[in-house]
Amino acid sequence: MSNVYDNAHALEKAIRNSEEYETLKSLHAKVKDDESANEMFENFRNLQIELQQKQMQGVQLTPDEAEQAEKQLELVQQHELISELLNAEQRLSVVVQDVNDIITKPISELYSEGE
Amino acid sequence: MSNVYDNAHALEKAIRNSEEYETLKSLHAKVKDDESANEMFENFRNLQIELQQKQMQGVQLTPDEAEQAEKQLELVQQHELISELLNAEQRLSVVVQDVNDIITKPISELYSEGE
Repeated sequence: MSNVYDNAHALEKAIRNSEEYETLKSLHAKVKDDESANEMFENFRNLQIELQQKQMQGVQLTPDEAEQAEKQLELVQQHELISELLNAEQRLSVVVQDVNDIITKPISELYSEGE
Repeated sequence: MSNVYDNAHALEKAIRNSEEYETLKSLHAKVKDDESANEMFENFRNLQIELQQKQMQGVQLTPDEAEQAEKQLELVQQHELISELLNAEQRLSVVVQDVNDIITKPISELYSEGE
């Protein structure tokens, strides 16, 4: 049993030391240190969270909200530092998704067996 | 980088060999082999999924649905084999939740820093 926890801690360390994580961490610190970039990024993030919550609740976005989201995305993508941060987030999220697929395989096997 | 994937595969193996997973797997097979237990369990699971989806969409359960869910739970808990299976699921889900908390720590640290 302790083997699961030992392996989880080893994986945590490997994620922490991965190039993907280190890049994201360093870009994150750079954005935090840049007041205007930080504000732009926070606004973008808050809007994303708000719209995601609506979608999860099955609420259709209004055309106005969809347009606002698209404009904000265009805006932050033109900001070099934030654009790099978003790319780094995207790269790490691929790793996290892969990890998740690998470690949940035993359980998903169990529940897809009979189908 | 490959280190993350190596560690993820090692963790997958550890989960697969854990007592919690082996117990669940064996109970799962027993329920599958028992036609009436299997049917009862499938009905229970389908109702659970249906009600969870409603709740995720922010839809309030009707008193009738809540009562139906409670009755089904009481029913399956009285079935020894299914009751054991539900307990085994619960025990494995604690491990999975712990693992998840451990490996997502680097990322959650990053996003809680400034708050």
